[in-house]
Amino acid sequence: MHRPILTLTTDFGLSDHYVGAMKGVILGICPDAHIVDISHSVSPYEIAEGAYLIAQAYPCFPKKTVHVIVVDPGVGSARRPILLEAGGQYFIAPDNGVLSMVYSAYEKYTVRLIANEKLFLHPVSRTFHGRDIFSPVAAHLASGVTPARVGKRIDDFLRPGFQKPQRTGKRTWTGRILKIDRFGNIITNFHSSDFPDLERRNFSVRLGPHEVNVLVRSYAESSPGEVFLIVGSSGYLEVSVNQGSAAKRIGCEAGAPAELLIW
Amino acid sequence: MHRPILTLTTDFGLSDHYVGAMKGVILGICPDAHIVDISHSVSPYEIAEGAYLIAQAYPCFPKKTVHVIVVDPGVGSARRPILLEAGGQYFIAPDNGVLSMVYSAYEKYTVRLIANEKLFLHPVSRTFHGRDIFSPVAAHLASGVTPARVGKRIDDFLRPGFQKPQRTGKRTWTGRILKIDRFGNIITNFHSSDFPDLERRNFSVRLGPHEVNVLVRSYAESSPGEVFLIVGSSGYLEVSVNQGSAAKRIGCEAGAPAELLIW
Amino acid sequence: MHRPILTLTTDFGLSDHYVGAMKGVILGICPDAHIVDISHSVSPYEIAEGAYLIAQAYPCFPKKTVHVIVVDPGVGSARRPILLEAGGQYFIAPDNGVLSMVYSAYEKYTVRLIANEKLFLHPVSRTFHGRDIFSPVAAHLASGVTPARVGKRIDDFLRPGFQKPQRTGKRTWTGRILKIDRFGNIITNFHSSDFPDLERRNFSVRLGPHEVNVLVRSYAESSPGEVFLIVGSSGYLEVSVNQGSAAKRIGCEAGAPAELLIW
Repeated sequence: MHRPILTLTTDFGLSDHYVGAMKGVILGICPDAHIVDISHSVSPYEIAEGAYLIAQAYPCFPKKTVHVIVVDPGVGSARRPILLEAGGQYFIAPDNGVLSMVYSAYEKYTVRLIANEKLFLHPVSRTFHGRDIFSPVAAHLASGVTPARVGKRIDDFLRPGFQKPQRTGKRTWTGRILKIDRFGNIITNFHSSDFPDLERRNFSVRLGPHEVNVLVRSYAESSPGEVFLIVGSSGYLEVSVNQGSAAKRIGCEAGAPAELLIW
Repeated sequence: MHRPILTLTTDFGLSDHYVGAMKGVILGICPDAHIVDISHSVSPYEIAEGAYLIAQAYPCFPKKTVHVIVVDPGVGSARRPILLEAGGQYFIAPDNGVLSMVYSAYEKYTVRLIANEKLFLHPVSRTFHGRDIFSPVAAHLASGVTPARVGKRIDDFLRPGFQKPQRTGKRTWTGRILKIDRFGNIITNFHSSDFPDLERRNFSVRLGPHEVNVLVRSYAESSPGEVFLIVGSSGYLEVSVNQGSAAKRIGCEAGAPAELLIW
Repeated sequence: MHRPILTLTTDFGLSDHYVGAMKGVILGICPDAHIVDISHSVSPYEIAEGAYLIAQAYPCFPKKTVHVIVVDPGVGSARRPILLEAGGQYFIAPDNGVLSMVYSAYEKYTVRLIANEKLFLHPVSRTFHGRDIFSPVAAHLASGVTPARVGKRIDDFLRPGFQKPQRTGKRTWTGRILKIDRFGNIITNFHSSDFPDLERRNFSVRLGPHEVNVLVRSYAESSPGEVFLIVGSSGYLEVSVNQGSAAKRIGCEAGAPAELLIW
C-alpha cells in the first residue's frame, strides 16, 4: 500500500510555527503521511485566492489524496468545518466558499459536516482550528477512517459565485482577475473551455483602460515587450509579457474586474 | 517501526541553498527521515525569535522527534553545540539560549555537549555548522545513535531570562512582545497559565502609549475594528484585531516591552 | 531499497500552485519519492542564479538523487529539455546553461536529450513544462526508468561561460558576484581552490569603488562592523560583515563584476 498523501493550502505564511504545528499533529496520527505544501502564502483571509490555488493544484494529485485548506477568517465563529469528497479525492476546509471552484468541476460530489469530536485535538482552541480540527481529521482520514465516521452529509454548504464570469451582453462577459502569479501573469477567470472558438474570432480582453487582443500560443511567439493573451497551464486566459510582468505594466490586482468582448 | 521525524528551524531563509544542503546531508545518513520545516524565516541572528518558534512547535510532535535549531550568530567562535533531551524529544542547537523556552517547560531535562567528531561532516567549515555539525548529528541520532555517544552531560549551558515577564510591582508585570505573526497579532510573553484568573479581574496591557483592556474568547466576539486581547493558541495573551493587523494599528515590533496591570 | 530522492530548484516562488502541482505529478508516478526543495526563490528567469544554487546543493545529496531545475525563460520555444548524468546523480533541466556549474565540476559526464514523449504528461502545455515534462520524466527516472530510455546522448548542449573568473592581467582576475545570500554575504566566483596560496599573499577584492583586503578564517575573528573576506562554506571568497549585511554596506547585487588583485 502506498503512503497516504496530504496537501496543505493556508494563509499562515512561513514565518510562524503554525504550519509546522499542523505537520506535527498530522505525523503524530498518521506517521506514514506524505505531506505536500501547495502554498501558505494565500493573502490573509483571501478565500477567493485559496479557492483558486487548491482548484489548480488538486488535479495533479492521485486519488485518495487528502487536501487541507485553511483560509479561515471565521475561525471561532459558527462557520462549520466540512469534508468534501469529489473525484476520488478528499478536501477538508471551513465552509466559507474556499472549495467553490472544486464544486464547479464536478456534477456529483458529497459534502459532510465535520462533527466527530473524537477526531479532534483537545482542548480545541478558539483561534487555531488548522491545528486542532482540520489537521487531525485529515490525518485520521488518511489513516483509514471512513468519511461517514467524520460526519453526516449536508446540502446547505456555501457556494459563492465569484469564480465564473457573467454574460453581460450578446458579445460581452464580465469576469475577474483570479490571481497575479509570481511572474506577473494576470490570470483571468475566462476559461478556454468556455470559449472554445476564440482563436477563430475577433475578441479583446479589457482590464480597466487597457485592452489586449493579441492571442499567442507560446511566449516565444510574442514580440519583445508586447502585452498578449495566452491560454495558461490551467486553461484560463492570462495576460502576459514575455520575460516581464504584465501586472506591473498594466497595474492591476487580484479581484479586479475583467471584460471579454467577442465579435 | 515508524520513520524518524526531524524538524528544522533556522534563520537561513528560502532563497539560498542552505536548507536544501542540510536536508541532503540528513537523507544521506538517515534515508528514512521525515524532515519537517518549522520555519526558516527567523530574522537573521534573532535568537529570541528562534527560541519562541521551536517552543511553540515542538509540543505538536511525537516523542523521539529530533528538532534542529540553527540560529547561530556565533558560528565559528567558541560557542558550543548542544543536545537537549526533554519530554522524550531531542533538540540540537548552538548553546546560545535558543532552547531556553524549552528548558522552562520542564523540571527535568538533560543537556549534552556535542563532542563526538565522528558524527560530523568533514572537513567542518567555519561558517556552516548547520550542514557540517547540527544536521549530521541529528541524522545519526534519528538513525539510532544514543545520546551518550554524542557527548557528555553539561550543566553550564546558557539560560537567558528573556522569555518570562518580571513582576515589577504589586499589580504590575513587565514582559515583552515575543513575536508579531503573519496576521499582525502581537504575541506577548504573558502566559494564561501564569495569570489564571484574568477573566474575573480588572486588568490592562500596555504597549507604549496604547492600552488594551478588552478580553474576548474568540475573534467573532469582537466588534469590527476593535483592538482586543485574546488567549492565543499557544496560551499567550495576544493583542489582535479581527481580520486586521494589530501590529500595524499599534505600531510595534518583536522584543518591545509590554506591561500588564491587574487590579 | 531506499526511497528515491528528487530535489526541486525553480523560479516559481511559493505563492502559486506551480510547485505543488509538480509534486503531485511526481507522487502520482513515484509514490515513494522523497521530494526536497532546494529553492523556489530563484529570481524570475535568472539562469545564473539557478545554476549557482543547484551547484552548491547537489554535492550534499547521495548518489542516484534526481535533481529537477526549472528556470526556463524559453519555455514553449525550441530550447530543449535535457538529462545530465554526473557523479552518480541525475539533473533534469532546460538546455539553457542552468547546469553549467555542474558541468564544470566533472571531467566526464553524459548529457541526453529528453525525447521520449511517453514519459510526459499529456497534453503538454506551452507554458508549464515543469509540470508536463521535467517532473514526470524525473519521477520515471527515480522509479527505475533507465537514462537511455529518456533519450539519446547529445554533445551540442549550451555551456555559457558566466561562472568562471577570467584572467585579465598578470596579477588580476575579473569575476562576478554569484549571489547575495539572506545574510547579505556577497558570494564571488573566486574559488579558494583556484587561488590556494591567498593566505600567504598580498591581495584585494574590488567591488566597484570598494576594496576589501582583510581575510579572516571565521566571523569571530573580525572586528565589529568590519568588512572582510572569508572562504565560505562552498569554497568561494565571500565579502561579509559579522552579524551585518555586507551587500547593504557596499551596495551591490548579483551579476555585478568583482576584481581580484594578487601581488
